[in-house]
Amino acid sequence: MSLAQPRKPLPEALITALQECFGKRFSRGESVLAQHGRDESVHAPMLPDAVVFAESTEEVAELMRLSYAHAVPVIAYGVGSSVEGHVLAIHGGICVDLSGMKRIVAVHNDDLDAVVEAGVTRLQLNAALRDSGLFFPIDPGADATLGGMAATRASGTNAVRYGTMRENVLGLTVVLADGSIVRTGGRARKSSAGYDLTRLFVGSEGTLGIITELTLRLQPIPEAMSAAVCAFPDVDAAVRTVIQTIQFGIPVARIELLDALTLAAVNRHSKTTLAEAPTLFFEFHGSAAAVEEQAQLVQDIARELGGEDFAWATRNEERSRLWKARHDAYFACLQLKPGARAFPTDVCVPISRLAEAIASTNEDIARVSIPIALFGHVGDGNFHLVVLVDPANPTEMAEAKWINERVVERALAMEGTCTGEHGVGIGKARFLVREHGAAAIRLMHALKDALDPQHCLNPGKILPPIEDCTDS
Amino acid sequence: MSLAQPRKPLPEALITALQECFGKRFSRGESVLAQHGRDESVHAPMLPDAVVFAESTEEVAELMRLSYAHAVPVIAYGVGSSVEGHVLAIHGGICVDLSGMKRIVAVHNDDLDAVVEAGVTRLQLNAALRDSGLFFPIDPGADATLGGMAATRASGTNAVRYGTMRENVLGLTVVLADGSIVRTGGRARKSSAGYDLTRLFVGSEGTLGIITELTLRLQPIPEAMSAAVCAFPDVDAAVRTVIQTIQFGIPVARIELLDALTLAAVNRHSKTTLAEAPTLFFEFHGSAAAVEEQAQLVQDIARELGGEDFAWATRNEERSRLWKARHDAYFACLQLKPGARAFPTDVCVPISRLAEAIASTNEDIARVSIPIALFGHVGDGNFHLVVLVDPANPTEMAEAKWINERVVERALAMEGTCTGEHGVGIGKARFLVREHGAAAIRLMHALKDALDPQHCLNPGKILPPIEDCTDS
Repeated sequence: MSLAQPRKPLPEALITALQECFGKRFSRGESVLAQHGRDESVHAPMLPDAVVFAESTEEVAELMRLSYAHAVPVIAYGVGSSVEGHVLAIHGGICVDLSGMKRIVAVHNDDLDAVVEAGVTRLQLNAALRDSGLFFPIDPGADATLGGMAATRASGTNAVRYGTMRENVLGLTVVLADGSIVRTGGRARKSSAGYDLTRLFVGSEGTLGIITELTLRLQPIPEAMSAAVCAFPDVDAAVRTVIQTIQFGIPVARIELLDALTLAAVNRHSKTTLAEAPTLFFEFHGSAAAVEEQAQLVQDIARELGGEDFAWATRNEERSRLWKARHDAYFACLQLKPGARAFPTDVCVPISRLAEAIASTNEDIARVSIPIALFGHVGDGNFHLVVLVDPANPTEMAEAKWINERVVERALAMEGTCTGEHGVGIGKARFLVREHGAAAIRLMHALKDALDPQHCLNPGKILPPIEDCTDS
Repeated sequence: MSLAQPRKPLPEALITALQECFGKRFSRGESVLAQHGRDESVHAPMLPDAVVFAESTEEVAELMRLSYAHAVPVIAYGVGSSVEGHVLAIHGGICVDLSGMKRIVAVHNDDLDAVVEAGVTRLQLNAALRDSGLFFPIDPGADATLGGMAATRASGTNAVRYGTMRENVLGLTVVLADGSIVRTGGRARKSSAGYDLTRLFVGSEGTLGIITELTLRLQPIPEAMSAAVCAFPDVDAAVRTVIQTIQFGIPVARIELLDALTLAAVNRHSKTTLAEAPTLFFEFHGSAAAVEEQAQLVQDIARELGGEDFAWATRNEERSRLWKARHDAYFACLQLKPGARAFPTDVCVPISRLAEAIASTNEDIARVSIPIALFGHVGDGNFHLVVLVDPANPTEMAEAKWINERVVERALAMEGTCTGEHGVGIGKARFLVREHGAAAIRLMHALKDALDPQHCLNPGKILPPIEDCTDS
């Protein structure tokens, strides 16, 4: 089934107006369209009709005013690292590329916050912070734009300690459907002054407004940071170590599970020589004494559950190498099957159910023919499968869909979520009614209708059709 | 100026229907109405036309269906501890008292969460958790209901470490204007599955829906907890100690400032013998070693800035006595002027501006005749004035309004907020356009209109009139 919808050609008057406004930064060139009509997912590309390279909030506002007058869809685009088809132009329309909005507007060292444009990436921000003693902790692996990370409510390896984009965005500048500009939140650490507009836009995937600027919370770089790797006899022992660590309230900064197949892929890709067994990657942040104490507590738990000795990486370069290997796991897995695309799953369950969720998933994995790697941010109860498929092979796609369905159904039965951090896009929309109930999704539709009555903003994403919003 | 609006008598058909549904739990008795038409603030009481004592989500839903059919206002009520007139029946209507919804539905020890009905108070929850090794950290002082705390986005002394209700509510059950029941969020630690409905209702003060059940995040009780008091030669030295502590990233659990007048009131009320000087109250949570380390770091900072020696309270009873004295500060201050009411302010500013904000506020205090105590959750940049007034004395009320205006204007000029934790109610509504800009408040109006088109839910709260939503 194709998700592409019938589309009208762009009105000539709109084309003329956009050419006048944006000159060469308005493009209908084939390669530009192709580059903006796909993301990192298995979803088939769907090209926009034009791309605008915006350089300021006012330009995005002008684009929205023009597009809204013609009821033409607008899709925000950062670096295209999304994995659920968020940027695909299902209904055609205009892609607004924000990657040129790369200004770091302000760093307030004394208040531990920074104001950045939406196209700034997390690595760019952290490079700019290098001499400040501060860092921005959210790390989804890819060097995504901060606007995109806010729009998908991203998280990643550090979330177990520092939270997700939800907790780390203090305020936003957002362009609404009609081109008006709204500033949400502020620089105070907390506020009870009215509805939480900031959180309304975080995770809204460009369907309620276009985020053009963010005020982000920063963290002091800890006095000490130390990383370690520990292999386990089986996945269950590794997961039980995670569960106990979380239940004891040990403030680990990162605690990541990689299964044996992922380790094999990582070794091949990153030239590492790690044991090809279920493995936990840890990181500890704090004072020197606190890091030592946390590490000792976790080692005690791991040892009791059969974990091998910890291999430590304390020097910055070693730590970086280790986390680079972890971050490259997704691409390393892709190389297990040359030419394959990854069909990613992203469930998150209450921590008490994690061992059971992963054990049952492994039973499912044993029943299919395609290679599937399992890894994830297990401290939050969040794990991914990288299901390697040839999208042209219907048997493989059927297997991938079957296992995705199984994993999601199981997570929902455990009061978990179909997506911990990737977002909904087009890939997860059909699970939302089961996850939240029809009344909640009808309420989300009411919000969408109130903010974007013409459905110009990234139409067809997140929300299942209103006629599907019934409890079965 | 009175805020009371013209009101229509309750339709007879509605009265009959509610009597049938709720029997004796539907009341129009004078004392019941009087009790439900006021809160802890200076705002003059405004009585509802009837009170319904609800005992379940389904009962609240039935009440909303009936009231909505007659377009009659409904105001949610917990224990009436709000301080901005949140529960006043400006337009009359029905007060729904949720204090009978006191069931602790579930405590999930292994997942560090609990499900409670909206009428459960924070002390009730913590008493029920006594043997679990867990606690619920949000502590606004008053023994408020958890539903009310979510509705006002409350926080308090522990927020500097554990966050506010925004970070500690995982999910909600909410009755919408038309009586439909929505469940938001879930029990996974994080999710990117659609719009953040949970955060939409947290802080909405009963104007978008009525919270009837909450899933709350719990924390493991720390291995060690230790509290201390330290007096300073002046307020500025105390505030600078706070700023450095936060900027160094020391994870204090509580850090509270009380000025000399507050200390005098506390000593009189709580029979303590603390120095009547600007004072910080601290609490440290963690392992024994971590607590010692944090305490040492903070003592070093304090000493350098002229802080006296720390007086320690390590035993549980001593700690409790100390925090009881802190919590009673509000009532202690009221007794400074018998018969007075408190006109509370609640600004929150970026931490770098806190010293300046407090110094300028003290200059304002020196210019008025009424007694004013200053204390607050300074680790978040949040502080209160307790302005003691006789509401019948126009000179005193004018002074109180003048100082409130000054304090809020200054906070807004510093990119802070007019209310850090009390909420807007009727008291702060007129500051919202200045704080957020007209576009943001118009967007809040659009949300209100979408969710409550008849304006039945706590009408007249939070939002200034739409005609005032213009940038000056």
